[in-house]
Amino acid sequence: MTGYVPLNFKAKLASFEDYWSPRVIAEMNDYQFKLATVEGEFVWHDHKDTDEVFIVIEGRLKIEFRDGAVELSAGEMFVVPRGVEHKPVAEQECHLLLIEPRGVRNTGDAGGALTAEGDVWI
Amino acid sequence: MTGYVPLNFKAKLASFEDYWSPRVIAEMNDYQFKLATVEGEFVWHDHKDTDEVFIVIEGRLKIEFRDGAVELSAGEMFVVPRGVEHKPVAEQECHLLLIEPRGVRNTGDAGGALTAEGDVWI
Repeated sequence: MTGYVPLNFKAKLASFEDYWSPRVIAEMNDYQFKLATVEGEFVWHDHKDTDEVFIVIEGRLKIEFRDGAVELSAGEMFVVPRGVEHKPVAEQECHLLLIEPRGVRNTGDAGGALTAEGDVWI
Repeated sequence: MTGYVPLNFKAKLASFEDYWSPRVIAEMNDYQFKLATVEGEFVWHDHKDTDEVFIVIEGRLKIEFRDGAVELSAGEMFVVPRGVEHKPVAEQECHLLLIEPRGVRNTGDAGGALTAEGDVWI
């Protein structure tokens, strides 16, 4: 505990510009809260061992599944169940809050150029 | 998985009116996401075994600690560490998203009239 300072999503989001590169802003037990700015298409992937939460802070996000899709606007969330293949897509810039256990890789087992290695805190 | 439907915080919040009575809207692994509308003072309490996350959706929330306080506005979050006594206070109506493990009691060990028994899903 280093002080009683609120975490302001938009202020934190303004501190970085690269897409698909989540920054950790907080931990609750062994879970991490990450902010990300995204635009374009991510890769198909899943997380075998954990659900994953997406909350849209600003903009719109489509999460594609093999048999459908969900479209999220600001103030909306969705829980992608473990093991379900999904591909996030944002036609325009979108700001997200992601919640998942510490140690989860953003691309799951898919890997590739968009894989974020290690935690970057802001 | 019953379909690909976004969870809209404000629409869910509009579906109930009682204060300090969290509704569960989603689970991620063994964690729950709960919406609450609050006004006035809650009770001093702590959670011995878990951190607790507060995210303000609308309005303002003050979380008092024995040695200080934090004030949160919409779009801000705070992680109350396990074992830290706290008392949420809202001078005016405030809408919150709470995240904590399944089975956590809202008043911790303090109990009292504001204790919510059992999960209520919306």
